[in-house]
Amino acid sequence: MKTRAAIAVAPNKPLEIHEVDLEGPKAGEVLVEIMATGICHTDAYTLEGKDSEGIFPSILGHEGAGIVREVGPGVTSVKVGDHVIPLYTPECRQCKSCLSRKTNLCTSIRATQGRGLMPDGTSRFKLGNETIYHYMGCSTFSNFTVMPEIAVAKVRPDAPFDKICYIGCGVTTGVGAVIWTAGVEPGSNVVVFGLGGIGLNVIQGAKLVGADKIVGVDINPVKRAMAEAFGMTHFINPREVGNEHVVQAILDITDGGADYSFDCTGNTDVMRQALECCHRGWGESVIIGVAEAGREISTRPFQLVTGRVWKGSAFGGARGRTDVPKIVDWYMDGKIAIDPLITHIMKLDDINKAFDLMHQGESIRSVVVY
Amino acid sequence: MKTRAAIAVAPNKPLEIHEVDLEGPKAGEVLVEIMATGICHTDAYTLEGKDSEGIFPSILGHEGAGIVREVGPGVTSVKVGDHVIPLYTPECRQCKSCLSRKTNLCTSIRATQGRGLMPDGTSRFKLGNETIYHYMGCSTFSNFTVMPEIAVAKVRPDAPFDKICYIGCGVTTGVGAVIWTAGVEPGSNVVVFGLGGIGLNVIQGAKLVGADKIVGVDINPVKRAMAEAFGMTHFINPREVGNEHVVQAILDITDGGADYSFDCTGNTDVMRQALECCHRGWGESVIIGVAEAGREISTRPFQLVTGRVWKGSAFGGARGRTDVPKIVDWYMDGKIAIDPLITHIMKLDDINKAFDLMHQGESIRSVVVY
Repeated sequence: MKTRAAIAVAPNKPLEIHEVDLEGPKAGEVLVEIMATGICHTDAYTLEGKDSEGIFPSILGHEGAGIVREVGPGVTSVKVGDHVIPLYTPECRQCKSCLSRKTNLCTSIRATQGRGLMPDGTSRFKLGNETIYHYMGCSTFSNFTVMPEIAVAKVRPDAPFDKICYIGCGVTTGVGAVIWTAGVEPGSNVVVFGLGGIGLNVIQGAKLVGADKIVGVDINPVKRAMAEAFGMTHFINPREVGNEHVVQAILDITDGGADYSFDCTGNTDVMRQALECCHRGWGESVIIGVAEAGREISTRPFQLVTGRVWKGSAFGGARGRTDVPKIVDWYMDGKIAIDPLITHIMKLDDINKAFDLMHQGESIRSVVVY
Repeated sequence: MKTRAAIAVAPNKPLEIHEVDLEGPKAGEVLVEIMATGICHTDAYTLEGKDSEGIFPSILGHEGAGIVREVGPGVTSVKVGDHVIPLYTPECRQCKSCLSRKTNLCTSIRATQGRGLMPDGTSRFKLGNETIYHYMGCSTFSNFTVMPEIAVAKVRPDAPFDKICYIGCGVTTGVGAVIWTAGVEPGSNVVVFGLGGIGLNVIQGAKLVGADKIVGVDINPVKRAMAEAFGMTHFINPREVGNEHVVQAILDITDGGADYSFDCTGNTDVMRQALECCHRGWGESVIIGVAEAGREISTRPFQLVTGRVWKGSAFGGARGRTDVPKIVDWYMDGKIAIDPLITHIMKLDDINKAFDLMHQGESIRSVVVY
């Protein structure tokens, strides 16, 4: 079949809209009509050539929502007409990782996904004779895409695509890091570094689970109002208190340090602050932000020996097929907000504008509606 | 009263044996006759002036066992004649840390202990008119010492002092890190870096809880035999496989990485290996070793984002009054071994020999018997 898609032809080039050929689903795969897709910083990171494993030409996009239009042989977990959210972290429920009960990082199709291919080692996309590669196993910048059934989460049909697509990455990454990676308990003091989309979702996750103090840290004072609307109780601007006093300011507000801190900046110096502002004895710091290639985190081992824990989170620790439908329910039940985070809606033809808005810091989340 | 004690008069000077004056226990304190004490690397670390908070003149020693000989006003948890192990990490059961249920790092007397004083802000030791300071709240290199009652663990009276004194630090640090800090489950693959006394105790802790593979890493092949006797199943010598291949060797042995790794070296480069040999998705690395002042640990944040956890352990995560008596029971029941680890027994007059043996790498644990 033919589908309209935005192709990343090379690093730092605008995406190009083309009609591409899409081969139908093979065994264990489904054809999904993408109804809406968010544009995430990770797409921009790859487009800018910063991802050493980025592949071109490819169809980016990994934050979508759509409808199953066709199923390949042997598919049993979804049927035509089901509403689904594509999962860049699949959940096969059979690999060592899935069976470990300790991680969401399913490894069943990792090798081929990393090479821009479906599990059988081929791509479904072509432009003329040229192979176009998949991206993060999703390629939601295409109106239609093919995915393994283990990489789609079936969700309720009454949820609006142009909102729940954000659950395909940003919402789950932030809310999930609080709930599944950190396991924040009611009454905890939480500190969030970086008040962009992920940070706001961490804040509303912390509020959802009954955190006590929720301290936000950002150098941009404009971020304060929405963060407060999402549940932030205290704000620290490193440019006001002095970057070297941020940790002490947090210790003062939290009576000794954060029970849980979250880095949503990708800045390795901030990651260190996020660890060192944790409470002696038990404070846990979770890295969510993606650092520049080659950057490293450092601290004195004494920080860990005296009880702080350093960990990271990918896709919020969520098991996609199990947990993503829950988050959709939470949205529909009003437990979490998404609407205020969707700042721009556009058509696929305008998708390059979304990257411009992101670079200008003028969007939280742009969404393409097909 | 008078007591014989070994005084650390200044950094890098031999300890001097003197009769010192010891004031009796004040409210909430007990007088303990130390029957035996181990000599630990931490004592040497302080004596060598490496501990920036080291205080001189002081009476070192923190790994003892003895008998309560007198109790001060208000003491209720122990009585004269009780056998006890001094606790450099006390357990008041009332401070924020003790009540957190998340850490063993009781903070109730931390400020005064760090200044070499009893909780009332004074020392009980004097030599002539000169104040001699306490060390880690214990000062077990004195035949008699005074301690707060919250800093002694009451243990069964049939356990031999010259063995269970080692539970006052080394045994608990190693075994406890496995049980309380890491929570190693049966069937786990465990990797231990550094096969000295702490490493051997980690190994027997891992064996105790039913670990599957127990991989030891040490540059000294002489360490292999005893480590195997304690439960090590695989040995890696970085000088044989090449230091840069150690992580891969561990991934090969453990089918993807350690479920839990422990650094018992204090070397920050090894700490990085210990983290990076952990299994993607869930492997946890625990720092036990004390690093040189100023050294830092580093890694790429990707290591954490893909599911590895970096933490540390102090006193094995053990709550002293609660858990130390359990370890004494385990020793008496034959669940853990201590006897082969006590390599030298000596009198207080010979204590400087213990430091020499340690520096020459010729001891696992020297014990002074009073």
